[in-house]
Amino acid sequence: MYQRTFRLSCEELSNALYVVGTELQVNISRCAPPKCKYFSVKCSPTVQYKILPPPPPKEANTLPNLLTPKSILIITMDTASKHAFDSKLSVQYYTESTETLGRAILHLTAVEISLDVDADRDGVVEKNNPNKGSWKWGPQGHGAILLVNCDSEWTYRKRQDCDDPAITKVSDLRDMSRMVVRTKGPAQLPEGYKLTLHVSQTDSEKIRVFGDSNQKDVSNPLSRCFLKYFITTNPLVLDENSLCQVISYKGGTVESQFFVEGLRFPDKDFDGLVTINLSLLEPTSQFFPETPIFTDKVMFRMAPWIMTPNTLDPVEVFVCSIKDNYEFLKGMKNLVRKTGLKLKVCYEYMNRGDRWMQDELEFGYIDSPHHSFPVVLDSPRNGYLSDFPYEELLGPDFGYVTREALDQKVTSLDSFGNLEVSPPVIVNGRSYPLGRIIIGVAFPTTTHGRNMTKVVQDFLWAQKVQEPIALFSDWLAVGHVDEFMTFVPAPDRKGFRLLLASPDAGYKLFHDLQHDGHGQAQLFEGISGKKTISVDDILSDPQLKYANNYVQGCVDWNRDVLKKELGLEEEDIIDLPILFYLDEDNMALAYYPDMVNMIVLGKHLGVPKPFGPQVDGHCVLEAEMCSLMGKLGLTCFFIDDYASYHELLGEVHCGSNVRREPFSFKWWNMEP
Amino acid sequence: MYQRTFRLSCEELSNALYVVGTELQVNISRCAPPKCKYFSVKCSPTVQYKILPPPPPKEANTLPNLLTPKSILIITMDTASKHAFDSKLSVQYYTESTETLGRAILHLTAVEISLDVDADRDGVVEKNNPNKGSWKWGPQGHGAILLVNCDSEWTYRKRQDCDDPAITKVSDLRDMSRMVVRTKGPAQLPEGYKLTLHVSQTDSEKIRVFGDSNQKDVSNPLSRCFLKYFITTNPLVLDENSLCQVISYKGGTVESQFFVEGLRFPDKDFDGLVTINLSLLEPTSQFFPETPIFTDKVMFRMAPWIMTPNTLDPVEVFVCSIKDNYEFLKGMKNLVRKTGLKLKVCYEYMNRGDRWMQDELEFGYIDSPHHSFPVVLDSPRNGYLSDFPYEELLGPDFGYVTREALDQKVTSLDSFGNLEVSPPVIVNGRSYPLGRIIIGVAFPTTTHGRNMTKVVQDFLWAQKVQEPIALFSDWLAVGHVDEFMTFVPAPDRKGFRLLLASPDAGYKLFHDLQHDGHGQAQLFEGISGKKTISVDDILSDPQLKYANNYVQGCVDWNRDVLKKELGLEEEDIIDLPILFYLDEDNMALAYYPDMVNMIVLGKHLGVPKPFGPQVDGHCVLEAEMCSLMGKLGLTCFFIDDYASYHELLGEVHCGSNVRREPFSFKWWNMEP
Ligand SMILES: [Ca+2]
Ligand SMILES: [Ca+2]
Ligand SMILES: [Ca+2]
Ligand SMILES: [Ca+2]
Repeated sequence: MYQRTFRLSCEELSNALYVVGTELQVNISRCAPPKCKYFSVKCSPTVQYKILPPPPPKEANTLPNLLTPKSILIITMDTASKHAFDSKLSVQYYTESTETLGRAILHLTAVEISLDVDADRDGVVEKNNPNKGSWKWGPQGHGAILLVNCDSEWTYRKRQDCDDPAITKVSDLRDMSRMVVRTKGPAQLPEGYKLTLHVSQTDSEKIRVFGDSNQKDVSNPLSRCFLKYFITTNPLVLDENSLCQVISYKGGTVESQFFVEGLRFPDKDFDGLVTINLSLLEPTSQFFPETPIFTDKVMFRMAPWIMTPNTLDPVEVFVCSIKDNYEFLKGMKNLVRKTGLKLKVCYEYMNRGDRWMQDELEFGYIDSPHHSFPVVLDSPRNGYLSDFPYEELLGPDFGYVTREALDQKVTSLDSFGNLEVSPPVIVNGRSYPLGRIIIGVAFPTTTHGRNMTKVVQDFLWAQKVQEPIALFSDWLAVGHVDEFMTFVPAPDRKGFRLLLASPDAGYKLFHDLQHDGHGQAQLFEGISGKKTISVDDILSDPQLKYANNYVQGCVDWNRDVLKKELGLEEEDIIDLPILFYLDEDNMALAYYPDMVNMIVLGKHLGVPKPFGPQVDGHCVLEAEMCSLMGKLGLTCFFIDDYASYHELLGEVHCGSNVRREPFSFKWWNMEP
Repeated sequence: MYQRTFRLSCEELSNALYVVGTELQVNISRCAPPKCKYFSVKCSPTVQYKILPPPPPKEANTLPNLLTPKSILIITMDTASKHAFDSKLSVQYYTESTETLGRAILHLTAVEISLDVDADRDGVVEKNNPNKGSWKWGPQGHGAILLVNCDSEWTYRKRQDCDDPAITKVSDLRDMSRMVVRTKGPAQLPEGYKLTLHVSQTDSEKIRVFGDSNQKDVSNPLSRCFLKYFITTNPLVLDENSLCQVISYKGGTVESQFFVEGLRFPDKDFDGLVTINLSLLEPTSQFFPETPIFTDKVMFRMAPWIMTPNTLDPVEVFVCSIKDNYEFLKGMKNLVRKTGLKLKVCYEYMNRGDRWMQDELEFGYIDSPHHSFPVVLDSPRNGYLSDFPYEELLGPDFGYVTREALDQKVTSLDSFGNLEVSPPVIVNGRSYPLGRIIIGVAFPTTTHGRNMTKVVQDFLWAQKVQEPIALFSDWLAVGHVDEFMTFVPAPDRKGFRLLLASPDAGYKLFHDLQHDGHGQAQLFEGISGKKTISVDDILSDPQLKYANNYVQGCVDWNRDVLKKELGLEEEDIIDLPILFYLDEDNMALAYYPDMVNMIVLGKHLGVPKPFGPQVDGHCVLEAEMCSLMGKLGLTCFFIDDYASYHELLGEVHCGSNVRREPFSFKWWNMEP
């Protein structure tokens, strides 16, 4: 209950603008004439009052109320006034002998005011939600939601809409959250009273508020008719240069529309919460600031950027076309055709020879009850592909966000093959309904390792809804988590399996082959210019065995972290037979195409063709892979990426990217 | 439970360093020879194992266990080993016809390791608290506490200890939090294993960790004997230049002491939490990073800076001595003598003519289970008194903190007469056991007003335990909340009353005087050079009445905020009869000495002598004040500050400062 101390006077008439739902509190003795002993109150039928402390029940109704220093009169009204000052209340003061000493008269105008948003998150701005001023997570939670307007309504000469202080297209309003000022009252507010919208300096850096374009006249009615479907002239109401703006009051029952635009994602120095206020200002005189006599507040949370795990349905698949990856492209086209999707190819004028579509960007999305759209996170890697996310992806309902490393050096670990996300998990009773982000870094006990740059890590942690897990990936020459792990959908258990590269599984398979008399089966057959090698030769190489023992130790360390942080059991994990070797810096590289570095499109897996040992004309590694995945109802398509990716230290996943459907689960229904 | 994936081999002996309380998980089939069908396990009595999935109960004990691809062996040990690798486990593999195929042998060394802190907050470092790795508020909470080492162990040539990367005095260790590494095991760790303490880059900016000086030898035993009571040589173990440090392992049962020093208070970009890790590193070879095979974590929270309300007992009273404030000093000395305290006088060589002791600094304290000391917050006001907090207050167990305004202009609202704190309150069921900070700013609906500078506001909000309330003080020429409000202790209700300056109460009292025939009573009698004025003249001045109506409106606005934010009722508030006038900029100033601007020392109040109307030789304002305060058991001492403070736009409170006892309530027991 909004309570306002109000003063009466016996010398002059008092006027009050009253907001329905509040209380005026009058200390009756403050304005009582000297020697006053009793008082009585009269009022119009539109006015209610209460006296505190409550007067004793009058038996004979002889005496008025006894005045005490703390006698309080509480005044309320139920509905808005038809005319200014059409309601009245008076207090009469008496001496000990009940002679009249004086009278204080109050004229009242009641108005109804509320600042409204979609605090119950059903996509519709409801009326005066009692919880609109605060924000709470969860299905029983409340509080409105903002989107960062990080897409571009324009396809040509584009820039992010949030970089433009004006709204230039009607469609942009869909990216904003509606806010309504509801008023009801007489034709005009009493002289000098004003309604203002206002924000704090800190919050103003994260939002803009626009008014309704209908309030502005366009002189030519024909052009107006045309324009109103495309071009808006919504006036800017609040931004960081204008923290407070008077808005117009119209009599009767009025709903004024506003549009709130988000400008910044949550980050290390921004928890995501923004408050907007509506105040009713009372004039004192031109020399004094106007006094806010009623303030209504609404709180928004900026929607976080959300990543999409392999278990979500694919929407679009992206690859680069370059002069030497024809075989790979053909394989990808065949794979994507089976899914019914279309392959989006980034051509050489844009990729400038950079084939690592996975590394330059990560697809995600933002979501609110009123609207949702994909948002690409552009990596600070900034290879030759660096213009692609902005130039080719940013557009209408396709947002863009990036973080540039400041003084820190960008390393290979800043590529987004090193940024993945798990499917939804429950860990020791704690639910992660949107999964958990996974990044690769150096051991925390090493001070000289490579790391993902701090600004990106800070950004990822600040989104809150997919709490990140840091793995150890600095043992790999390239250093990306997608070189040793991925997730595939599964019909049972947790709905997915974690796939891990496993030299032990590789050696086990090769030992079995040798034991079965296939020690002379050759790897790398059919690769032009590549010498084949036999299973026997591999098994008898002590250096290779040593390297793979080391790699298995590194993967096992990550296995333990993933089991703990994702709440996995051994049955949730599948070990893929993959061998590694060490380069001159003792960093690990896949010995043959790294099958775990695959692309997952529903039940179709695009797996790097391993060129493993041939037995009876069939690749043993492919067979093992098909067997393991087949049990989950998944089909493997082996794609030859040897010359075009593997030899350049990447594979199918590194060379592709997938935009996926958003989660049906709404992020505001979780409790992080 | 810390689980670690471990690998066995039939080709070579495996060695494991095992940490008691963890589990080694071995996938038995990974290292099984080809065509293996069964396995069996044997081990020393010091080793326990479990097979998953559990083998069926053996009826005839004929066959070993059936090997499946997911057969897991879980290995644990109960106590530390006496000697390296004195425990053994072996897995034997069999063919379908139970012929032996091979055997994997594991040699085990068990150690006990824990990183310990005072996570239960009783002042003593307990052993391996299960909650030490996280932090929770409240009496049922947990998590260790750090103090910012913001005092100076040295009185001369001093600087803040946290600015010195070395510990130079034994006494400084009391300001730090103890941390203990407990180990139990054989005389030496197996070759190449290491224990390291480490922190993240982000956390390293907020702490230093020192080792125990006993570990360093001092060559001269005599000097050592002398030195050890005063001078320490505690080695620096971790700081922002050294994120990871190997610590020595000694055999048997050992407790190694460490000392953790806090460097930064919580602020906008620092939530106060810091994690320190202890890892056991396993060597692979000199070419690879060592692998952390076990990590123990402890979490600290930096103690917040806490303000002390008027309801806490005074410890020291501070005033300035300047050439023209002899009368005031005499009054203050008399007052302070009654409380049994000593008056601390800041002389002119230090104050350089700046008399506003309230405005340059605010006293507070920091608290932990092991230690507590006062900390002065130095205002960015930086008047002539600006050296006083650092030069005169900073010292052994007297800390110092400041925030300098960056690009913003410092205004009068940055003086700490504009920074106060309420007594403990409960508001709508929410408890503020340390009260709430109160600051004065401009109306949020005004864009041109004066405000408290952002860095100080950010600092105050970040302390979390006394959530601030922003009042409107920009209507006052000086603009400090202490010009219209204070708190005094009370024996009943909430334990205090809010006192508010009230022009209405002033006019009421003067009207009563006039009505009783004292309209010719004079104000300002006895002030040399000041013309007196009668009650009649005051009451007949329409401009003064207008000004006071405006001021009453401003105070009432703050009254409504304070009632709401502190959960106060009318009975918790006392209106003091004080009139204001407006200067040429329409800013308010006290018309006669502003009695609410008082100093509160327990039951003794030092009140500006108001020089009010004299009736029967007594000042009516003093009488009213004594009557109001007397009902609460408080005694008023009127101090003449007219010429020396009032005429310079301040009063007793502005010219003094009080250091108070800390709360007996411990901040970590609240739930903000
Ligand atoms: Ca709604
Ligand atoms: Ca847009
Ligand atoms: Ca303890
Ligand atoms: Ca110290």
